[in-house]
Amino acid sequence: METTTRKRSRSGGGAARRAARGSTAVETARFIERNIPNLELLNDEALEIIEHNAETVLEEIGVNFVNNPAALERWKAAGAEIDGERVRIPRGLARKLCATAPSSFTQHARNPARNVEIGGRNLVLAPVYGPPFVHDAEKGRRYATIEDFRNFVKLGQMSRWLHHSGGTVCEPTDIPVNKRHLDMLLAHMTLSDKPFMGSVTEPSRAQDSVDMCKILFGEEFVRDNTVMTSLININSPLTFDDTMMGALEIYAANMQACIVSPFIVGGAMAPVSVAGTLTQVLAEVMAGVAYSQLVRAGAPVIFGAFVTSIDMNSGAPTFGTPEAAQITYGAGQLARRMGLPYRSAGSFNGSKLPDAQAAYETASTLHNGLLAGVNFMLHACGWLEGGLVASYEKFVMDADQLGALHKMAAGVSVDESAQAMDALREVGPGGHYLGCAHTQAHFKTAFWRSELLDYKPYETWSEEGARDTMQLATARVRKLLDGYEQPTMEPATLEALTEFVAQKKASMPDSFM
Amino acid sequence: METTTRKRSRSGGGAARRAARGSTAVETARFIERNIPNLELLNDEALEIIEHNAETVLEEIGVNFVNNPAALERWKAAGAEIDGERVRIPRGLARKLCATAPSSFTQHARNPARNVEIGGRNLVLAPVYGPPFVHDAEKGRRYATIEDFRNFVKLGQMSRWLHHSGGTVCEPTDIPVNKRHLDMLLAHMTLSDKPFMGSVTEPSRAQDSVDMCKILFGEEFVRDNTVMTSLININSPLTFDDTMMGALEIYAANMQACIVSPFIVGGAMAPVSVAGTLTQVLAEVMAGVAYSQLVRAGAPVIFGAFVTSIDMNSGAPTFGTPEAAQITYGAGQLARRMGLPYRSAGSFNGSKLPDAQAAYETASTLHNGLLAGVNFMLHACGWLEGGLVASYEKFVMDADQLGALHKMAAGVSVDESAQAMDALREVGPGGHYLGCAHTQAHFKTAFWRSELLDYKPYETWSEEGARDTMQLATARVRKLLDGYEQPTMEPATLEALTEFVAQKKASMPDSFM
Repeated sequence: METTTRKRSRSGGGAARRAARGSTAVETARFIERNIPNLELLNDEALEIIEHNAETVLEEIGVNFVNNPAALERWKAAGAEIDGERVRIPRGLARKLCATAPSSFTQHARNPARNVEIGGRNLVLAPVYGPPFVHDAEKGRRYATIEDFRNFVKLGQMSRWLHHSGGTVCEPTDIPVNKRHLDMLLAHMTLSDKPFMGSVTEPSRAQDSVDMCKILFGEEFVRDNTVMTSLININSPLTFDDTMMGALEIYAANMQACIVSPFIVGGAMAPVSVAGTLTQVLAEVMAGVAYSQLVRAGAPVIFGAFVTSIDMNSGAPTFGTPEAAQITYGAGQLARRMGLPYRSAGSFNGSKLPDAQAAYETASTLHNGLLAGVNFMLHACGWLEGGLVASYEKFVMDADQLGALHKMAAGVSVDESAQAMDALREVGPGGHYLGCAHTQAHFKTAFWRSELLDYKPYETWSEEGARDTMQLATARVRKLLDGYEQPTMEPATLEALTEFVAQKKASMPDSFM
Repeated sequence: METTTRKRSRSGGGAARRAARGSTAVETARFIERNIPNLELLNDEALEIIEHNAETVLEEIGVNFVNNPAALERWKAAGAEIDGERVRIPRGLARKLCATAPSSFTQHARNPARNVEIGGRNLVLAPVYGPPFVHDAEKGRRYATIEDFRNFVKLGQMSRWLHHSGGTVCEPTDIPVNKRHLDMLLAHMTLSDKPFMGSVTEPSRAQDSVDMCKILFGEEFVRDNTVMTSLININSPLTFDDTMMGALEIYAANMQACIVSPFIVGGAMAPVSVAGTLTQVLAEVMAGVAYSQLVRAGAPVIFGAFVTSIDMNSGAPTFGTPEAAQITYGAGQLARRMGLPYRSAGSFNGSKLPDAQAAYETASTLHNGLLAGVNFMLHACGWLEGGLVASYEKFVMDADQLGALHKMAAGVSVDESAQAMDALREVGPGGHYLGCAHTQAHFKTAFWRSELLDYKPYETWSEEGARDTMQLATARVRKLLDGYEQPTMEPATLEALTEFVAQKKASMPDSFM
């Protein structure tokens, strides 16, 4: 499977096609198709050393598959050496197994115009994932609720530059842990028509995600097509726990995509050096991706790298640092050499407020992510305080910046119009371009323009209240939520989804564990 | 002259050598020597089109040398076609003349440890240049004074990551226009021991700059060595005014370096397209650099590109935009193909406050500048509000971020220690790297660490006053200024410089024009 094939022409129609008819008119950019080169930061010699060492790690040290006898059986059958829960993988085996994973795949959305192609030279942007807290200027920092969750899904739906609705945009802590995934999925499915992620916190919740997708897209469609991309974190160093692997097994078996992603705070879960961390990242991803292919050859999977480093003074993770950038570039090179889609970067920062620190660290990470060849950028907007907080203001601030990435990635045209020789001849030395024919013909689309930041002269800005970026963002959050329009959905589909959630919830007692 | 040669062993010693003995112990990083590749954004075909078109501009349209008969004579003698003040340059002539300019040169500082090498794979960082206003949290936005100027020179001297003291770090508006340059130069020479820039606002002021350098460095030394790099803006489109060219003539004749830099707000002073703007930039730089070589073959000169674009709604210049980034990359490629050092990028932003907007736009520009192969980055810190304001807080915020560029540029080591295989073996699956031998040996230098930003947990940060980045920066400005130590200077040199300034000031009436 190089690319999953869209099969909208099948008989019987189904929910996906019906949903498509009801899509709203909110303008969203197509995923980014890069027309610029990647920055190849490491040279071939360095990459070969790292690849050699990663094979040595798999062969000599091995990885643990915890509490998962079936996984050990699969590995044994594939030729690995099993010692308790330790799996030692002969040199070359993991990479060979990874070869059946597709280099690119389509993730379908209920609105087909919002399908995304993950891999190749593309970049798909998805919002922040996982924060237990939210923050806004008015109410400050607090535990996230399902209302916050729904608000962030709405903001994502309203964003022109986000291609993907994401997954746990924040943790709805007011909903029992064992039922949260149902409300989260229902929100993504009903409040957005962009693609989304499934639950990974229990294998049964992954199965619920698949079952709800069957209602939304139709059972036949889900069997043949990828409709979810879900986040499978590796318990670094070198440990694959049964919860995450259980979810991966469900998804892979159903041809649903997984991001296999080391979760590394360098200095704690990996060596303090960039090369050492890249070695571990590669070993972990090779083992995880190979395992996905043992579950089902051809299952779509993404090479993930979530890497930050520890502040040796405070013990806190740091973001937007040069070492993290170097790892982002290097891991991208390693992913391309494996022919796998690559996930990394995001709106990372360690700030407690959406202030200058947050923006310095975020902008550094976003730019490096673009140039590192990232194909799927989770956390592309909204991240604050090391990922503990989803920030309303920062969500719209970051989402606005993502527009600049689109324009940057489009590259530089040198067609006759872009050469502008007529304009140069018309204006000449000492002239002015504002009124010339070329400017008049192109000024509307020539330059990317922020929909949030302030371009006004000081005096105007001052008269309007001298607002900083956070205040501008507060106003924009309100405007977007006030203007939100829910994409329509076939009533039967909505009813079936609602019924599924209600039945599932009724079938088990609340649990906050 | 590939590289000017330092001649410290000459008899007689001189001010420079004496000054060196008195240097302070403020730690400053050596200029950046990149160990990472540049991003080559445009392909060869696009660059060749732009180069061809730039020659067409010079040949068919030409450039104006205004009010400068001597320049017209020089151009005529070199083979250009003169028509009034218009100079039309036959295809290939400008590029051929540029070939005598050095690809790299040393700018000497009075402290030889702070000499910088401009060109090659190096990056030299200099502070903001030109703002008539300053801003700080306490006193807000106001006209800059000589006290502010001295404060910024002190902050530059105290910055670990700034290699250069710059030039007009702000306009000392309380000093008459015709005398400002004397006080500014005296401040750079006495309050800093880093390299600096000369005056360009009148040819006579350029000559004063050279004369003061002769006092500081010794007459013989200045004759043979570059001790100033000065900013010569082109009056885009395609116009070379007599003030700037007069200053360039003085500097080139004295083997002092000039940045020949188009000053372009795209859409106003250049076409609205990236390729069209690059064509104009190249034509202008070729004409300006060629002219410097007509004045004196071998004079050191830098390919400059200051390019922003206009906001078509407000008419204001915008910063940190994708089009500006593309031009920064493209102009760097064109400069390298000419074998010239390259100046571009900086802490550009259009914000009125050192807030998230300022940081997003700045971080984007700094990162793109690093990866675009910039050799001399003017405005690397302190820029606010489109360059109208030098911000105290942003100066230290940006200067801190410049540290990250140093680490990023150092590249990724794959030596045995960096490979960290011992650490991977020691820790193994499920282990922890904090205590392992490799971490203990390297943790102090492994990760770049901000000296400004907040890495503390939320609770600690909250107890300490919940300060945003601007508040942290206010405290850092105060700390640096309180801790400032003036580099010592031979009393005779100080006396001679002070006497020169006093005599010059007494020789003319004040003028604020």
